[in-house]
Amino acid sequence: MMHPFDLRLDVLAQVYSEGRYTPREVITTLRERALALNPEFNAFIYVLTPAELEPYLAALEEADPASLPLYGIPFAIKDNIDLAGVETTAACPAFAYRAQDDATIVAQLIALGAVPIGKTNLDQFATGLNGTRSPYGLCRNSVHADYPSGGSSAGSSLAVALGITSFALGTDTAGSGRVPASLNNLVGLKATKGLISTAGVVPACRTLDCVTFFTATAAEASRLLALTAVQDPRDAYSRANPSWNGIQAFGAPEPGFRFGIPDTLEFLGCAESEALFNAAKMRLIALGGVPEIIDFSPFLAAAKLLYDGPWVAERYHVAGKLIEQQPDAVLPVIRDVLQKAPSTDAVAAFDAQYKLQHYKMQCDAILAGVSCVLTPTYPRPVTLAELAAEPVKRNSDLGVYTNFMNLLDYAAVAVPAGVMANGLPSGVTLFGRAFTDQYLLGLADALQRTQPLALPGGREMCTEAPATSATHDKMAIVVCGAHLDGLALNSQLRQRGATLQKATRSAPHYQLYALADGKRPGMVRTLAQGAAIAVEVWDVPHSEVGSFLAGIPAPLGLGKIELEDGRWLTGFICEEYGLQNARDITEFGGWRAWLASSKE
Amino acid sequence: MMHPFDLRLDVLAQVYSEGRYTPREVITTLRERALALNPEFNAFIYVLTPAELEPYLAALEEADPASLPLYGIPFAIKDNIDLAGVETTAACPAFAYRAQDDATIVAQLIALGAVPIGKTNLDQFATGLNGTRSPYGLCRNSVHADYPSGGSSAGSSLAVALGITSFALGTDTAGSGRVPASLNNLVGLKATKGLISTAGVVPACRTLDCVTFFTATAAEASRLLALTAVQDPRDAYSRANPSWNGIQAFGAPEPGFRFGIPDTLEFLGCAESEALFNAAKMRLIALGGVPEIIDFSPFLAAAKLLYDGPWVAERYHVAGKLIEQQPDAVLPVIRDVLQKAPSTDAVAAFDAQYKLQHYKMQCDAILAGVSCVLTPTYPRPVTLAELAAEPVKRNSDLGVYTNFMNLLDYAAVAVPAGVMANGLPSGVTLFGRAFTDQYLLGLADALQRTQPLALPGGREMCTEAPATSATHDKMAIVVCGAHLDGLALNSQLRQRGATLQKATRSAPHYQLYALADGKRPGMVRTLAQGAAIAVEVWDVPHSEVGSFLAGIPAPLGLGKIELEDGRWLTGFICEEYGLQNARDITEFGGWRAWLASSKE
Repeated sequence: MMHPFDLRLDVLAQVYSEGRYTPREVITTLRERALALNPEFNAFIYVLTPAELEPYLAALEEADPASLPLYGIPFAIKDNIDLAGVETTAACPAFAYRAQDDATIVAQLIALGAVPIGKTNLDQFATGLNGTRSPYGLCRNSVHADYPSGGSSAGSSLAVALGITSFALGTDTAGSGRVPASLNNLVGLKATKGLISTAGVVPACRTLDCVTFFTATAAEASRLLALTAVQDPRDAYSRANPSWNGIQAFGAPEPGFRFGIPDTLEFLGCAESEALFNAAKMRLIALGGVPEIIDFSPFLAAAKLLYDGPWVAERYHVAGKLIEQQPDAVLPVIRDVLQKAPSTDAVAAFDAQYKLQHYKMQCDAILAGVSCVLTPTYPRPVTLAELAAEPVKRNSDLGVYTNFMNLLDYAAVAVPAGVMANGLPSGVTLFGRAFTDQYLLGLADALQRTQPLALPGGREMCTEAPATSATHDKMAIVVCGAHLDGLALNSQLRQRGATLQKATRSAPHYQLYALADGKRPGMVRTLAQGAAIAVEVWDVPHSEVGSFLAGIPAPLGLGKIELEDGRWLTGFICEEYGLQNARDITEFGGWRAWLASSKE
Repeated sequence: MMHPFDLRLDVLAQVYSEGRYTPREVITTLRERALALNPEFNAFIYVLTPAELEPYLAALEEADPASLPLYGIPFAIKDNIDLAGVETTAACPAFAYRAQDDATIVAQLIALGAVPIGKTNLDQFATGLNGTRSPYGLCRNSVHADYPSGGSSAGSSLAVALGITSFALGTDTAGSGRVPASLNNLVGLKATKGLISTAGVVPACRTLDCVTFFTATAAEASRLLALTAVQDPRDAYSRANPSWNGIQAFGAPEPGFRFGIPDTLEFLGCAESEALFNAAKMRLIALGGVPEIIDFSPFLAAAKLLYDGPWVAERYHVAGKLIEQQPDAVLPVIRDVLQKAPSTDAVAAFDAQYKLQHYKMQCDAILAGVSCVLTPTYPRPVTLAELAAEPVKRNSDLGVYTNFMNLLDYAAVAVPAGVMANGLPSGVTLFGRAFTDQYLLGLADALQRTQPLALPGGREMCTEAPATSATHDKMAIVVCGAHLDGLALNSQLRQRGATLQKATRSAPHYQLYALADGKRPGMVRTLAQGAAIAVEVWDVPHSEVGSFLAGIPAPLGLGKIELEDGRWLTGFICEEYGLQNARDITEFGGWRAWLASSKE
């Protein structure tokens, strides 16, 4: 068979369903491609043998393809994540162990039909952002030989960018799932901490680690997240998403969404990086976004805590004993980072946590005013030569916009944002509050669709527009009576942190009644002649909808209301039996007008 | 004026509104009572002077009583909480400072009309559970002179129990707001971490500290919590309650609620404590509760971490410098606890946090199966003589059932549970998941009303039954169609963590239609002849209701459905216009029966 070809999830599913290739044919070809490219890129520490692949392929041949959402999808696994029966090295041969069990995420993916191709190279113990800190060879960039792949999930980014796998698993503590994505024209999803299980992953910082997805498109990352985000009893830090249900919140942004832009932007003198970032900003504006300058200092202050503070001690938890017993088994640059850990005492460790909580309060308050924030993924790319000359400083340069994310418990998506004059890909990052993952992916998807940027690894461009409108961690609720701004029950909305999205009118298909108690309206959709009713759309935090609904007495309830702009939103409806002795006040056009007239 | 009299919030409000006494008269009398009782009880480190009280009293005389929910209500403040213009000592004269500003909670209460009487005695730096560790004198029990008040919020419990104030502020890190409550016939509310601001409080363990309320009744604690639980920008650990709205969730329990009972119970040989605990359990059963034995070992394992683990280092944050510079300024027993803090390193500090997270996962899974857990507040009371003989061991004895609570992020209420043969009060504790505070208080209120136990401090018995039925962190939703157990859309409920409460029937006032699409029923309340329809009640986590509602297409929505037992619960309703071309299937009595018949 020919290669490269388009490895996107839906394209490959189509290839299989039409019988053009079998999973065995595709996986075998891709395995050979991995071996062929590895001498140059060092993407894989280990590629599975045909014998090791056989059970996965045989299982697929027994299965009903329709029952497996990831039937025959090839993926790569960063080599700090366990695949049963294969060594996990964390890029440290002295540390290596043969994994007894699959990591939870690996087991999930295999159960969904995906096929692991191999274990990928990384900065040792996932400590680094560049991809050169490995005894298994340096990972050069997928496009430009003078640049690194980025790290620490170096080989995973290459596996996807080089067209070897559809997607790959990375990990991300300080930016390891985002920096290599942007350097290789990929989407890098660092979902909210705890959404993807980290059971079976070698910890870097146990309280901060995330498993990430590298994909060619945001739509694929959205699908993978929706398939795998479940609370895992094997991972004590796992958590359920409290306010959305998988893929439902993914879609095009609603016009008027506000996005933050840092008040100070650091490009370390790289005008091209600045221009590409500004172009991404303009594309968000073209999508209906409204930029808002935000104070970025508390985010940067939080970032400083990651390596200057006690969190380095978490990294010592795994590698500490090895460093003490066989110091030469660990790369000097990693050893230098970790060796200072035991000198921090517990008093200082808690002091740093108080500081972080203080910054988080400030950052949360800033995020409360926007739907997300747009930043560069890194100030500028660094060359392999620069990294060799100043390995710590140039590595740090890459983490300016990524180090704070996990400390502050935010979700982030790195999105392709263009190509520099020398051909090197560049990227930006969208981040937001915990559990806004699918919202961010919807924006990222829209960004990808508005830029004619080739996909990596032989994938074809995708040009269709997305179908749905993105929901968010707030839910729009249409009100038509005492909940209107300033009226008697409006405080029920404001006390819940709800904000007025806009005053508008319903579609012209409603009748409005004043119920017999005189205090409440009933808004009733009619198949006969109706009118447009004055309403307001309020954005209510998802978590507060339950208590709001609980307090609504019969005959009212919350159903779906059609607005004059054609949207159907959740809003107040009224049961028919409750209209007894009600007065038809449709002619007033709304509850406010009726109140005004009845006061006269 | 006469004293003691009934200082409960609503009784005092009534006294004022009827003009029987003025706040000035009451506060002046109570101040004198505080001074008169203090030589025996050492409850107050400082009682406000008439000159210091004057601004509060003058302000009340200018105010509209109806505008102040706590108009003229006297309260006491543990002396690790700031009152502007007065010294905060934390029971350590060398540490004392004059507070510039009120703590947030103090400022809130004063703004609501409450009047501070004085600053109360405590175990130094809030480190202790007994009330004898203070240079300002030992706090004996309010009822029995051979016993301590309990601590560390020693004087605050006495202020309420002795009828000096309506309520008092304590703090609670390891049990300091619960142990003294149970030893003095009081309700002690340790609300969910972050609900009551700790800004202006001397930290014990900053990540664990809570401000607490001591009251005579659970109803009063519920009211105070509803008035003061707001997110405070002065407190980085402050948080908003995501799933309830103040007082709404307070009320009588719904029959059939499940409560946990530890599988191992430790009373340290005290048969009377065991009997009183069992009596409380029987009263919960009489209220409709269903006891469930739970594995208590992970709770006890978590508790061990508090003093054996790195959290002691948090206490060093405040007192450490003083211990280093003036070791004799700190009581030896406190010094001994704190001095080991700097020897713990950051690696060990994080290791302990991983352990805690592991236990929390286990405990959370256990709590998911019950509405709350009932425990003793302490295994048995200890005498002053026992404390003098073995100050550390006997203090530890008191914390068996309290030490884990804040580490695990749970809410807890200590509730009076009877009197021992020697007259000493005893108590039990109800605890549950974060943000179940008002639910727990509703249960506590019901427990108080079912036991003929005199209230402390000259308060009269309260015998009226509570009015409402308690809601919870889950919301009951009535389903009648494809969401029924096992049917096509049931997974929408299960994926959200919803559980089947029961299968039942509606009140006989409904018609059931098969909508034109053939896939959905419309349940319509009718004023004409209706039928009882087979439905199911599902308990859906509050936080998931929004996304569930968002996914319900027109003409359906969620309103209120009347059940055959007379309850009106949130459930599926249908707009009238959607019944076009629908078929009346009321005769089948339910959706399942209709499906079965249509398959035939």
